[in-house]
Amino acid sequence: MSHFQYNIHHQDPATAARRGVFTTPHGRVQTPGFMPVGTQATVKGLTIDQVAATGAEMILGNTYHLALRPGHETVRRLGGLHGMTLWQGPILTDSGGFQIFSLEGIREVSEQQATFRSHIDGAIIQLTPEHSIEIQESLGSDVAMVLDHVVALPAEPDAVVDAMERSIRWAKRCLNAATRDDQARFAIVQGGLDAKLRAECATELSSLAFEGFAIGGLSVGEPPEEMYRITAATCPHLPTDKPRYLMGVGTPIDLLENIARGIDLFDCVMPTRNGRNAMAFTDRGQIKIRNAVHREDTRPLDPDCHCVACRHSRGYLRHLFIAKEMLGPILLSIHNLTYYQRIMAEARAAIELGRFSEYVAKKKKGWLSQPTTNAETRG
Amino acid sequence: MSHFQYNIHHQDPATAARRGVFTTPHGRVQTPGFMPVGTQATVKGLTIDQVAATGAEMILGNTYHLALRPGHETVRRLGGLHGMTLWQGPILTDSGGFQIFSLEGIREVSEQQATFRSHIDGAIIQLTPEHSIEIQESLGSDVAMVLDHVVALPAEPDAVVDAMERSIRWAKRCLNAATRDDQARFAIVQGGLDAKLRAECATELSSLAFEGFAIGGLSVGEPPEEMYRITAATCPHLPTDKPRYLMGVGTPIDLLENIARGIDLFDCVMPTRNGRNAMAFTDRGQIKIRNAVHREDTRPLDPDCHCVACRHSRGYLRHLFIAKEMLGPILLSIHNLTYYQRIMAEARAAIELGRFSEYVAKKKKGWLSQPTTNAETRG
Ligand SMILES: [Zn+2]
Ligand SMILES: [Zn+2]
Repeated sequence: MSHFQYNIHHQDPATAARRGVFTTPHGRVQTPGFMPVGTQATVKGLTIDQVAATGAEMILGNTYHLALRPGHETVRRLGGLHGMTLWQGPILTDSGGFQIFSLEGIREVSEQQATFRSHIDGAIIQLTPEHSIEIQESLGSDVAMVLDHVVALPAEPDAVVDAMERSIRWAKRCLNAATRDDQARFAIVQGGLDAKLRAECATELSSLAFEGFAIGGLSVGEPPEEMYRITAATCPHLPTDKPRYLMGVGTPIDLLENIARGIDLFDCVMPTRNGRNAMAFTDRGQIKIRNAVHREDTRPLDPDCHCVACRHSRGYLRHLFIAKEMLGPILLSIHNLTYYQRIMAEARAAIELGRFSEYVAKKKKGWLSQPTTNAETRG
Repeated sequence: MSHFQYNIHHQDPATAARRGVFTTPHGRVQTPGFMPVGTQATVKGLTIDQVAATGAEMILGNTYHLALRPGHETVRRLGGLHGMTLWQGPILTDSGGFQIFSLEGIREVSEQQATFRSHIDGAIIQLTPEHSIEIQESLGSDVAMVLDHVVALPAEPDAVVDAMERSIRWAKRCLNAATRDDQARFAIVQGGLDAKLRAECATELSSLAFEGFAIGGLSVGEPPEEMYRITAATCPHLPTDKPRYLMGVGTPIDLLENIARGIDLFDCVMPTRNGRNAMAFTDRGQIKIRNAVHREDTRPLDPDCHCVACRHSRGYLRHLFIAKEMLGPILLSIHNLTYYQRIMAEARAAIELGRFSEYVAKKKKGWLSQPTTNAETRG
C-alpha cells in the first residue's frame, strides 16, 4: 500500500470546490489547506510550536535555498528537514525552478539542465531534474516538486510552449530519478496564460505516475481574473483523485476563488511577509498597524481571533513596529498565519455544508470593505 | 498593610548570600532573582508566554525609552505596562538616569533637572526627579527607580561626590513626589569606585522610606573585581530587610559573586544581546554558534536545558544564524534567559542548603573552561 492517499469526501454542489484528506508518512492534511512557507527551514520568526499553534498541518521548504545553504548533505546529516525543524507533520519542498528563474541568476537553460548563479556567493551552479530530486530526497520532504522551466510573463508564445514542453520532459526525468517510496512527487503544470497549452500540459502530466499536481507560473503579476481563468481551464484536465496545488497563491480572495475552481492546496509568503511589513489580515480587509489611528486603540486586531497577537491591543502592536521591535513582525506573522488557517477551516466547513459560494460571497463582502494589498508570493 | 514585603528565610553561613521572597501587588519574586530586560515594553524577540516559560518572575521596562516612545500617557491609556505587555508578574521600571547620562544626549545637569536630547528625534527634553516618578506612575510598574545622576567612570573625585550627593537629594524629591501606594520606590546608591563614598551614600539613603535599594553606576567597564569590591563595601550599609538590586549586571560569574556579597536582584541585557549575537551561555562557558565546528553537530546547546532552543541541534541553530533568519536570535535569547533563570534557581537552592560557596566554585570551574565574553549591560 502506498504511503500516500488522497480521499475526497465532499464535493460542493455549486462549484468545483472539494473537501479532502491527503495522507502522508508524516500524517494527514485536511484540504483545502494552506502551507506556511519555511523557505530556509524556518517559517520566518516563529518557533515550530508557534507554527503548529496557527493550525497549520503541512509546511513548505525550498530546495534552491537549502541546497545552497546549509547544503542538502548537511540537512541530511542533521536529520533531514524534519530533524532540523522538529516539524512533526508533512513537509513539501519546492524544486527550485521558480527561484532559479525568478531570482535573475539564470544563465542558460539547455535540455539537460539549468545553469545559474547563486544569489549568495555568485557561484555558477548547474541543476538537472535528477539532481533536484536527489537533493529533495536528502532533505527528506514528504512531497518533492519536479524541476520546472518557468518563463517570466509576458513572454513570446514560442518561449511559453518551449518551456511547457521542457517542463513535461523534465517531469518525466524526475519521476525516473526518484528512489524513495516515502516521498511523493508532484508534477507542475506550465503554459503561461494560454488555457489551451495549460490543458494540454495537464493532460500529458496526468498520464504519469505522480501523487499530486501543481499549477505553477501564476501569481507573477497577472490580474487575478487571469489566474482564475487559468486555474479553471486546468483543473478539469487533472485527475480528480489526486491533490491539486496552486503554487505561491495568494490573497484570501485568491484562495477562495481558486478553491471554487478545484484547488486543494496553497502556499504563499504573503501572511508572513505582510506581517513583517505591519499589515494584518482581518475579515474587514488588511489593517496597517503603523497607522497613527491605532496609537491608543485598546481593541485587538480581530476580536474573533484566538492567536497570541490578538490578546494584545492594537496600540501595543503599533508601538512594537514604531519602536522597531522584533516582536511586532513576530506577532503579526502569527496572526496572519492563524487567519489564513481560519479561512481554510471555514472553507472546509462550508464545503461540507454545500454552501461554499454563500461563504465566499460573505467573506468577499467583508474583505472588499477595505482594499487588500497584493504582493509577490511564491516562497 | 503595605503592598510590598521582603522576607529573608535563609542566610548562607559562609557568605553574605540571602534567600528571600519579595512580595508585590503583581505577585512574588524568589530571590536571588534575575529580571529580563524589556526596555521598550518587550523582551526582544520573545512573546510574553515565552518570557514566562524561561522561569522569569519579574521583568524590567525603561522609563526613558517608554517616555519618548510611545509616551507615558499612551502607555497609561493602553492599560499601563501590564496591560500592554500582558505580563502578569511584577515589573520594575528604570528611571531613565542611566540612559540620559550614557546615551551621550546629556546637555546640562542642574540641581533642578537633567536636560538632554532625545536619541529618536533630537528634541531637547528636561527631566526632573518628580517627573520621572510621575512617568513611572503612568507606566504602572510595581517598582519605580529614583532618578539618579550617573557619572561616566573614570571621573574626577569632585564630580563623583557631586553626582552622589545630587542623587541623594533627587532620591528624596522622588519619595516626596510619589502618590501611588501600589508602587514601591527603590533608591540608587552612587559613589563611583570609592568605597567610602558608597558607604556614605548607602547609609544616607537607608534612613529614607524606600522599599528597596539599588547599586547603580557599576558594570560600566571597570574590572569585575572592582565591581565586587564596591558591592561588598555597600551591602553592609543597606537595610538587611529590604531587597538589594545590582543594576545592569552581568555575566553568570558576576551574578554569583554579587549574590555572595549580599545582592538579591539583577537585570542585564546580556542574555538577550548575546543571544542575538549568536552566543549561548552554558555550564562550559559561551558557545559561539556561528563557528563552523557546529555545522553538522546534532547535539543540543545544552543537554540539561529544557528550553525550546535545546530541542534543536546546534547545526540547525548555526544554519539559522548563517541564513540570517530571525529564529536564530529568538531561540538563543530564549536559551540564554532560561539559562540565567536556571543559575538563579540553583543559587537559591544552594543558599537553602548552606552550600553557596561550594556551588559557586563548581560553576566557575565549568565557566572558566572557556572564556565568557563581557559586554555592556544596563537596559
Ligand atoms: Zn490574531
Ligand atoms: Zn536551552
